[in-house]
Amino acid sequence: MKLEHDHSVAAIRARLSAGAKPNYIRDWVYGGIDGAVTTFAIISGVVGAELSTRTIIIMGFANLIADGFSMAASNYSGTKTEVDNLERLRRIERKHIAAEPEGEREEIRQILQGKGIEGEALESAVAAVTSNDETWISTMLVDEYGLSEVVRSPMLSAASTFIAFLICGLVPLMPYLIGSEDGFVISLVATAIVFFAIGATKATWSPQPWWRSGLETLAIGLAASAVAYAIGYFLKSVV
Amino acid sequence: MKLEHDHSVAAIRARLSAGAKPNYIRDWVYGGIDGAVTTFAIISGVVGAELSTRTIIIMGFANLIADGFSMAASNYSGTKTEVDNLERLRRIERKHIAAEPEGEREEIRQILQGKGIEGEALESAVAAVTSNDETWISTMLVDEYGLSEVVRSPMLSAASTFIAFLICGLVPLMPYLIGSEDGFVISLVATAIVFFAIGATKATWSPQPWWRSGLETLAIGLAASAVAYAIGYFLKSVV
Repeated sequence: MKLEHDHSVAAIRARLSAGAKPNYIRDWVYGGIDGAVTTFAIISGVVGAELSTRTIIIMGFANLIADGFSMAASNYSGTKTEVDNLERLRRIERKHIAAEPEGEREEIRQILQGKGIEGEALESAVAAVTSNDETWISTMLVDEYGLSEVVRSPMLSAASTFIAFLICGLVPLMPYLIGSEDGFVISLVATAIVFFAIGATKATWSPQPWWRSGLETLAIGLAASAVAYAIGYFLKSVV
Repeated sequence: MKLEHDHSVAAIRARLSAGAKPNYIRDWVYGGIDGAVTTFAIISGVVGAELSTRTIIIMGFANLIADGFSMAASNYSGTKTEVDNLERLRRIERKHIAAEPEGEREEIRQILQGKGIEGEALESAVAAVTSNDETWISTMLVDEYGLSEVVRSPMLSAASTFIAFLICGLVPLMPYLIGSEDGFVISLVATAIVFFAIGATKATWSPQPWWRSGLETLAIGLAASAVAYAIGYFLKSVV
């Protein structure tokens, strides 16, 4: 998030409304990381346990579609719940305002008092906020329930997750599909690049520099794969 | 979220501060769903492709620990990024306030004007909010950046995810560990119960009734497993 230092009214208004736009980069990044990690962990487990390349292709694709679908469906449901919940609270608050305006007005008074406004200014501010039902309800949703009023599309969130999962999860499987002889090495290198690239993309909303965010995701992905390899290697002789 | 209709000052204050406490149920629920879905999808893929029970145990455990670790690590990193970002913006805004108080005061004026406050009341409200640096900064973080000031612990988020992933992911593997003959049927029934139970738990923060939320998660989990089974069954004769 870049912080502009332009204090013109237009610039401030632009900043205030920009914060209210939905953003799907997070869905892409988390879907992509999960796709690359789970697929490459399956490959590592198979290689560690010395199972067949056939197992890699079957289990890799089964995971790719099944896990990708499940993540996307969960994201759809979670986003829809948020949207529905916001609507539900909005309806309830609207009813409360109609039925018991004094009590709801007292809530706004407490919220504004919490911001340091007092005395006559407080009464005028309360009167101003409660003069418009939409502002009244919106202030309660944001300041009482701590909700964000940014409305995300469940369908777009789910689609972003699924497509990113699919693309990033296909990368580690590629060498096995083209029947490469050094399948595991090529898969490892290609997946490492994907881990680093998605991690670097995460830096767009993080205070970390891109290379550090990239290295962090690379480290998590490689550690998870090493664990899968070790478990495969260990269980090979046990079961 | 229950909506109390008590409008005493004490009740309103209690509600305002309750909204500011971190909550880790979501980490449990999402970790649990992912653990049950991915593990059972692996089992379904193996059964669909008629691979060995040995493959189920090896790939099931490799996924359980590797994917659980990766989800927990991602959650740790994501939560830490949020906490760091909040701190970073707080520091930047503090610096801006010291360097250019008039510009930052204009931002507060725009924010309060957006809530419908005008004229003399607006000037008094702006003066009140900007009389205390903490309230000033906090108002900008919430209303300008749309951030929540609830600070979550990265360690607790990660631990909740990992433990839930492990517990829910172990359920579908259990029948295979005790060497049951009807492994797949028992695993299916036990996992279906887990899907429904976690889905019902989700209803604590959703407007849906518990049974509908439970059925929804059950449907997603079973659909993902059916997809994995179908891919295993289809690829069995292709590769």
